[in-house]
Amino acid sequence: MIVAVDAAGGDFYPKNPVEGALQAIEENSDLTVLLVGPEEIIKKELANHKYDEKRVLVHDAPQIIGMEESPAQAVKTKQQSSIVVGLGLHKAGKCDAFVSAGNTGALLAASMFILGKLEGVLRPTIASYYPTLKGFRLLVDAGANLDIKPETASQFAKMAQIYCQQILHIEDPKVGLLNVGEEEGKGTENLKEIYATLKDHENFIGNVEGKDILPGKADVYVCDGLVGNIILKFGESIPEIVQKMIGSAIKEMQMSEQEVANIQKVLHAALSSFNYENVGGIPFLGVNGVSIVGHGGSSPLAIKNMIKSAVQTVEQDVNGKIVASLN
Amino acid sequence: MIVAVDAAGGDFYPKNPVEGALQAIEENSDLTVLLVGPEEIIKKELANHKYDEKRVLVHDAPQIIGMEESPAQAVKTKQQSSIVVGLGLHKAGKCDAFVSAGNTGALLAASMFILGKLEGVLRPTIASYYPTLKGFRLLVDAGANLDIKPETASQFAKMAQIYCQQILHIEDPKVGLLNVGEEEGKGTENLKEIYATLKDHENFIGNVEGKDILPGKADVYVCDGLVGNIILKFGESIPEIVQKMIGSAIKEMQMSEQEVANIQKVLHAALSSFNYENVGGIPFLGVNGVSIVGHGGSSPLAIKNMIKSAVQTVEQDVNGKIVASLN
Repeated sequence: MIVAVDAAGGDFYPKNPVEGALQAIEENSDLTVLLVGPEEIIKKELANHKYDEKRVLVHDAPQIIGMEESPAQAVKTKQQSSIVVGLGLHKAGKCDAFVSAGNTGALLAASMFILGKLEGVLRPTIASYYPTLKGFRLLVDAGANLDIKPETASQFAKMAQIYCQQILHIEDPKVGLLNVGEEEGKGTENLKEIYATLKDHENFIGNVEGKDILPGKADVYVCDGLVGNIILKFGESIPEIVQKMIGSAIKEMQMSEQEVANIQKVLHAALSSFNYENVGGIPFLGVNGVSIVGHGGSSPLAIKNMIKSAVQTVEQDVNGKIVASLN
Repeated sequence: MIVAVDAAGGDFYPKNPVEGALQAIEENSDLTVLLVGPEEIIKKELANHKYDEKRVLVHDAPQIIGMEESPAQAVKTKQQSSIVVGLGLHKAGKCDAFVSAGNTGALLAASMFILGKLEGVLRPTIASYYPTLKGFRLLVDAGANLDIKPETASQFAKMAQIYCQQILHIEDPKVGLLNVGEEEGKGTENLKEIYATLKDHENFIGNVEGKDILPGKADVYVCDGLVGNIILKFGESIPEIVQKMIGSAIKEMQMSEQEVANIQKVLHAALSSFNYENVGGIPFLGVNGVSIVGHGGSSPLAIKNMIKSAVQTVEQDVNGKIVASLN
């Protein structure tokens, strides 16, 4: 099993991708990582570490796609970037998966272009992890498809259910359609049509509302990429906001250092459910390959977990199960 | 100044609406409240209180619209309900405003039907309060218009800005368009057109993302009613979820009762920014009258604050300013 890692992606390359990759091979003795990026900086970073050299490959890709670059433009003009080269190696069968904490748009565009779609898939989709009281669940689509149609929504639900089963180990993942009310017949004409399509779907629990997400009423939340992206980024802002609110509240009260420390400890534990490091990356479902993207700020732990998800996706043959389910 | 109060609306009628109304007249000596609902139950509830009888009027409306009833159907068939009768009294000039914690959909439908639109308004809109680090701000539309067009979005922004100025006392309210990214050119074709329309708008700060809401980057967040409703209900679920997460974290640690009490006190203070009771109700902007709707679970304090918002809306001539701004 070889997983290619974008060593020039994210806010903290090459350090975090390299460290995460080395942690991953330490944890999994069957794994080899293929670091893709400017060879010189990768080797310099590797020199800081001790590792099993037989299981760490390096492939030079001298160009770097910045986090804010226009995705389509970057993919077109930077053919020697880690993203384009890494996905090319995956396509050519030189590795089993590609993970990146780099420019999300560029990774999506390049994945679509280089890997293509799985048989029967209308449109690939980003299924984002979402923190709930029950653990991480999936929000699909999280921004790759701003408009969705009934047929694509139905495929998104099926693909996310399979990922939920195989990677999150939820036996019968429940699908909910994000809407303005619970009753059938709520929402726009498009949502009503999507509801009708999902109705025959296994484990469809009907419409769910904004208040149902954090309690984890469903396991897969279906929505268009506009709603998904706004909800996703909103959720990511919660821990910092809660910390700030609690910080202000503490300031207004007279508390000893010990009391403040206690509160911080509890808060830290409570908000750990929101910690994306533990899941590490979000899969681009429906492409003919395994392409996982993480936050720009991914820590080594997050990168390690992205690699782990990639390994499981290959081992569980998620793509094979998607093709079987759709065709 | 006479404000009509739906005494048969919400989860706790007649108690909470009556108590809230009595608190409101105690606070404002120029105010008279007109309690609308089944006369018998209102009088029975009033008998539990001492109050200035000259400033509490009762108008019988024997029918009750349930919280889960189909709005259009309920308004059509229950002509003697508190909502239909109360708005009829407002239309007839017997009172200056109508507030209700009842069936939101029914209140909107009846407000549209009975009060009609203000001159120049394409579509009325619900502008919901939204908690941010800077205090409550407005989210428009919060569910009355699931699709929005550039012209309506522009009107929503203007109406919400006026409400922000006059009722929230924010001098130059900043308008942000909720989108999937900050840059111009992001989002669906419709969002791009809305952006182009808002561009010439006073204090338009461009696109804002899901993560910008809680920090209060804008004062008015423009979105369609689907996004608005999902975000609104999501936000309302946060305090309970944070409490549960902190509760679980506390359980896993060994803490004294005193320590737990301290944490609960801090948490309570921190989450008070999310307490809708302090703002009390959301205005239905663009109708030819003053119609304010609150949560079904509104406390007497929330009802009192809804009445206060209604009084301010009349006193500040919000509707006159809206008409002047649109025409």
